[in-house]
Amino acid sequence: MALDLTKYIASVPDYPEKGVIFRDISPLMADGAAYREATDKLVDYAKDKGAEMVVGPEARGFIVGCPIAYELGIGFAPARKQGKLPRETVKATYDLEYGTSALYLHKDAIKPGQKVLVTDDLLATGGTISATIKLVEELGGIVVGTAFIIELKDLHGREKISDYDIFSLMEY
Amino acid sequence: MALDLTKYIASVPDYPEKGVIFRDISPLMADGAAYREATDKLVDYAKDKGAEMVVGPEARGFIVGCPIAYELGIGFAPARKQGKLPRETVKATYDLEYGTSALYLHKDAIKPGQKVLVTDDLLATGGTISATIKLVEELGGIVVGTAFIIELKDLHGREKISDYDIFSLMEY
Repeated sequence: MALDLTKYIASVPDYPEKGVIFRDISPLMADGAAYREATDKLVDYAKDKGAEMVVGPEARGFIVGCPIAYELGIGFAPARKQGKLPRETVKATYDLEYGTSALYLHKDAIKPGQKVLVTDDLLATGGTISATIKLVEELGGIVVGTAFIIELKDLHGREKISDYDIFSLMEY
Repeated sequence: MALDLTKYIASVPDYPEKGVIFRDISPLMADGAAYREATDKLVDYAKDKGAEMVVGPEARGFIVGCPIAYELGIGFAPARKQGKLPRETVKATYDLEYGTSALYLHKDAIKPGQKVLVTDDLLATGGTISATIKLVEELGGIVVGTAFIIELKDLHGREKISDYDIFSLMEY
């Protein structure tokens, strides 16, 4: 009874700018059966990799990562933008089309040697996920895998994180 | 084997400003057993209320709401800040200490008559959760309950949403 999960992705033309097709996972999340099936596949992957912790970047990475952590009975740590985490943090910057941005992780979010799954909704250029991986490794965590709902092949994010195992449910 | 969940809340003095004690749920989320136990209590509440959909505001509402939706096999819809949702939305504004802010929900996020649990990490003044409730109701959803990890009693958020059922795991 596997669902065709691609039916639950809304393709929005010219968003956020002209010529770009935005792949929107919100119809998938809004459908209980589809959200559960997609998550279960990511849970199986995380279990295979022996993940002991899940880390996802703000904010759609929470939607993907939190149910994985819950189902496996392991923790979740959010990688957040500036000014969102109240305690001591580590910081990683990454390039945007124009300028740079940064992500932060609480210093006590990861224990040294802990096996970590890094996850987000989308693998695009790989900038966000690379920064998240850097944060985990700075704290001594071991990134055992990366998992995504969607991979945008043309943006070559896979090359940016080629040192890591990559699992995605759909490709565009 | 119930855990004392209050042990997993970090109280951060003078954050985000002097004189305020910030109640940080991240140690709870980072601990697999505590995150699971807290979530399971919210799942039981959501099930009792007959929730068919979960809605949570950006971004910690995703951390609380997504595993509830996953466990119950129901959908999750994120209430987001401006410019984050690619398709047609409804909008609700709410007051901040200085000025106002707004939250948005995709127009197709909720079906008319659908029973909705609205959830966030914290019930403080109730501004964010009121705006989220407004969005759900504008789309014809029925808010069957509201659920929080923490309720800050002194900020009287409970009075702002007194027309709704309220469940919180901890009070400060």
